[in-house]
Amino acid sequence: MTRLELNILGCGSATMTPRHQPSCQVLNVRDNLMMIDCGEGAQLAMRRMRLKPMRLNHIFISHLHGDHCFGLPGLVSTMALLNRTNSLTIHTFKDGVELFSQWLDYFCRERPFEVRFNVIDTHKRVIWEDDAVTVTTFPLVHRIPAVGFLFQEKPKLRHIIGEKVKELDVPHYAMNALRQGEDWVTPEGIVVPNEELTEPADPVISYAYCSDTKFSRRVIKSVAGVDWLYHEATYDDSLRIKAHKRYHSTSLEAATVAREAGAKRLILGHFSKRYLDETPLLNEARTVFPNTLLANEGLVFDLNRR
Amino acid sequence: MTRLELNILGCGSATMTPRHQPSCQVLNVRDNLMMIDCGEGAQLAMRRMRLKPMRLNHIFISHLHGDHCFGLPGLVSTMALLNRTNSLTIHTFKDGVELFSQWLDYFCRERPFEVRFNVIDTHKRVIWEDDAVTVTTFPLVHRIPAVGFLFQEKPKLRHIIGEKVKELDVPHYAMNALRQGEDWVTPEGIVVPNEELTEPADPVISYAYCSDTKFSRRVIKSVAGVDWLYHEATYDDSLRIKAHKRYHSTSLEAATVAREAGAKRLILGHFSKRYLDETPLLNEARTVFPNTLLANEGLVFDLNRR
Repeated sequence: MTRLELNILGCGSATMTPRHQPSCQVLNVRDNLMMIDCGEGAQLAMRRMRLKPMRLNHIFISHLHGDHCFGLPGLVSTMALLNRTNSLTIHTFKDGVELFSQWLDYFCRERPFEVRFNVIDTHKRVIWEDDAVTVTTFPLVHRIPAVGFLFQEKPKLRHIIGEKVKELDVPHYAMNALRQGEDWVTPEGIVVPNEELTEPADPVISYAYCSDTKFSRRVIKSVAGVDWLYHEATYDDSLRIKAHKRYHSTSLEAATVAREAGAKRLILGHFSKRYLDETPLLNEARTVFPNTLLANEGLVFDLNRR
Repeated sequence: MTRLELNILGCGSATMTPRHQPSCQVLNVRDNLMMIDCGEGAQLAMRRMRLKPMRLNHIFISHLHGDHCFGLPGLVSTMALLNRTNSLTIHTFKDGVELFSQWLDYFCRERPFEVRFNVIDTHKRVIWEDDAVTVTTFPLVHRIPAVGFLFQEKPKLRHIIGEKVKELDVPHYAMNALRQGEDWVTPEGIVVPNEELTEPADPVISYAYCSDTKFSRRVIKSVAGVDWLYHEATYDDSLRIKAHKRYHSTSLEAATVAREAGAKRLILGHFSKRYLDETPLLNEARTVFPNTLLANEGLVFDLNRR
């Protein structure tokens, strides 16, 4: 299994509390780190979770509320102090480019690396891809423009059955083609079906991040069939009017999104500071979607686990 | 004694570590709070120390390095969420006005209170005063323009000796004049010297904050005779070349400033993250200035203690 882990650095809403940091996650894809939102204290949370800033090359900012981005200047400054040289890409709405540039160009003037900006908007589109993963934005429903991020692993290579290839004397140069699913043709011209020489590739995993948002059918569509869904659950159902007014969701609504989207697992987060214990939010969600978990600072979810 | 306490919210340098937060202090003057520098995480540190953001009306930024001001947007946002209405004054260099305004006007657009800026420069001058205290800037020697802050209590009122005023039937309306040191003239025209009716006022206390700075004779002059001196001690004496190159001080130099300025007590801070224990810095300083203490997050210094 290739590494695919979700690190929770912050899952509180708005105000920092001793219990929760503002929104911040790090997705570890084969030891390449991608940060999702960057609330105040992100750099310290990375250090606490032993996540190396040098392995972090992408930061995705879901929307321009302070509790989702005030950690950026500090994190970038620390990267500069660590003498980072590889470029860092910040995916953000247009206003963010100006706001972040102003501060970074002033406070981290002498940084030995480039900060690139990738301007996103509320359209559903692929905003980044590499060999391992594709990142797609989709619109959320919040007080200001906001997007969710869908991370989808790229198809993986099939596993070669050592005994079989040895038995048939398949040469080394043919292995890559086998891993990619091609059949093997012997020097005598006999076609050996790929399935006899390889085992299926590991399944590709998908993860969707939805914060901050009101309950929305469009969101359900956007995250249809996802393996892991992080959905904000700022309030419990008794506060659903407050939630709607503020364009947030209740845990019951988060669970409804997970169920109707056919997600495999749901992680709740972005908790209001009013909760000293989020178990009631969990219990509420589980009445609708049993495979629900609570986010918490320091937790690492192995997304390969099913 | 009127309340005069120094709260240490952060005394680390540059990078946040699990041991130290970036620079931030809160001076409590008779339950009015004044913040000195505002590193990332300031709002959380305030909460941890049970310091009420609503009682904080002034923030003094010593210089525009990120570890001294990245906590501002988060703190102001939280004040807005708390529905603060009284104005907040940020004392900062000119560049800071633009930088902070850009962020606060975007991220805290709808704040129900006014943020005022008081532009400071590297001249020695009174930048704020009220009934209780005078705040004076003085130049430090750093890589960018930086100032120290000298907080001086205003002369206090004398204490009335209850028995004596009762004995002489001094009327209530005359008490304020007595507290201010005036003599009492009886209806018969007899002058009773103030000293017979009152005891001396509490001593006025002064506190000087010096961070970040190289060792400097000008600084010594500026803090001459201060009761409490906070002076940065980023490094120990073995690293004094590094310290000078980076325009920082060693603990030996901090102690020299305290001794030559005739300070009564010295608090060391702004520790490099290389120290897992600052006792060597303390011991080094005490060879020169025995009345030295180490800052630490969560510590409260009662500045009335002598």
